[in-house]
Amino acid sequence: MLDFDKAGGLVPAIAQDEETGEVLMMGFLNRQSWGLTLATGIVHYWSRSRNRLWKKGESSGNVQEVREIRVDCDADCVLLRVRQVGGAACHTGYRSCFYRRLEGGTLVVDAQRVFDPAETYGAQPEPGAPSGTGS
Amino acid sequence: MLDFDKAGGLVPAIAQDEETGEVLMMGFLNRQSWGLTLATGIVHYWSRSRNRLWKKGESSGNVQEVREIRVDCDADCVLLRVRQVGGAACHTGYRSCFYRRLEGGTLVVDAQRVFDPAETYGAQPEPGAPSGTGS
Repeated sequence: MLDFDKAGGLVPAIAQDEETGEVLMMGFLNRQSWGLTLATGIVHYWSRSRNRLWKKGESSGNVQEVREIRVDCDADCVLLRVRQVGGAACHTGYRSCFYRRLEGGTLVVDAQRVFDPAETYGAQPEPGAPSGTGS
Repeated sequence: MLDFDKAGGLVPAIAQDEETGEVLMMGFLNRQSWGLTLATGIVHYWSRSRNRLWKKGESSGNVQEVREIRVDCDADCVLLRVRQVGGAACHTGYRSCFYRRLEGGTLVVDAQRVFDPAETYGAQPEPGAPSGTGS
């Protein structure tokens, strides 16, 4: 159903808040994480930086519940419409990983933090959190 | 500003309709296309399948006007909030490339075509259209 061969076994996946339409993050799926996402209804990504399966929210509890799955014209990208538990997708504590707007050549934060990463993760970032994408 | 080194010179870019919040497509940027997008205010991608610069809508006229640019936490993904000229982003004639919903193990089209690809492109697909992503 998905074209995993085009990009070395990975397919980009966009997570969008089902209610607000806000784009929360982008991650990657491999066959295993795709299968688990379908089987459990909870989003599982593949962390490129850690090279391992990554159940989003495995440390913070901020999992993503799948509400709808959409596939693009070439079957090489997936749109996951989700309910974001805990209200924040980003390991930095913001609702969306896209909390910065480009303005006059610099990046400006125009969002409010939902949680304090130090409290949620302690000294460590979420184990699955890629330096890649999201938390 | 963007981390082009993480994935071989390319950064994924999500195009979202600025008014409706609909996710229209995903494409890739390289340094050249990013620079042109910033300079012109019109989205330019890098077509992986054709290995060339791709001004979205170069054949159909359905360009994407940049309204806002957002960058994710790791600076390895961009969210382009756009005005989609012509009302359709997908080379298949649908408004969004994500015109299919996964339902009971199959993909179901639940969108209406905005244009007829045969009329818009003739016998040829849009030259820049990757088998990769979008039109």
